[in-house]
Amino acid sequence: MNNLFQLAGSLPEAECFEPLARGEKVLIERIVSSGQQTPAGQWYDQPQAEWVVLLQGQAVVTYEDGDRYTLNPGDYLLIPAHCRHRVDYTSQQPPCIWLAIHADLCLAQ
Amino acid sequence: MNNLFQLAGSLPEAECFEPLARGEKVLIERIVSSGQQTPAGQWYDQPQAEWVVLLQGQAVVTYEDGDRYTLNPGDYLLIPAHCRHRVDYTSQQPPCIWLAIHADLCLAQ
Repeated sequence: MNNLFQLAGSLPEAECFEPLARGEKVLIERIVSSGQQTPAGQWYDQPQAEWVVLLQGQAVVTYEDGDRYTLNPGDYLLIPAHCRHRVDYTSQQPPCIWLAIHADLCLAQ
Repeated sequence: MNNLFQLAGSLPEAECFEPLARGEKVLIERIVSSGQQTPAGQWYDQPQAEWVVLLQGQAVVTYEDGDRYTLNPGDYLLIPAHCRHRVDYTSQQPPCIWLAIHADLCLAQ
């Protein structure tokens, strides 16, 4: 049985992006961060929305419009397509475990 | 900030299916179970694949072909479309918190 909380004994220096399942316009991936942050002055600008939940650790996500979110385990965000954002902080101990779903998504009613 | 681990003070008797985000052929939902199981002799038979992770509690999922999975927090499964399956057990304390993504998915390489 695969488990999202299972990590390699020693983490690489770079963030790990691990695709778990995919479809035509859908990608489910686990992301493991341990102290990395988006380089200064850079923004993610993605063609698809991203629904992301932090499952372990603590992280800070900032939007270009100034909104700033401190995420703790279980906290989730729907980042709209082309909403410029960056990751300003990820904890090292424990490492951050994220689950991200990339797809053309909007909030469910 | 919305949090997957946040539950209402008292849970309803039925399982809760809460859509969180959706797209044309994608649905992300949280499921909260607390002791319910699929009624005897019944099987889920879904037109789309379901990627599902158990985030809290313990649960048992059985496939019609006999495979049986005991899930603990972090364990995940990709249930193919039309793969008949049932939930044979869900813990009450703590309640089971699942995150499910319904879409046309296959395992990522």
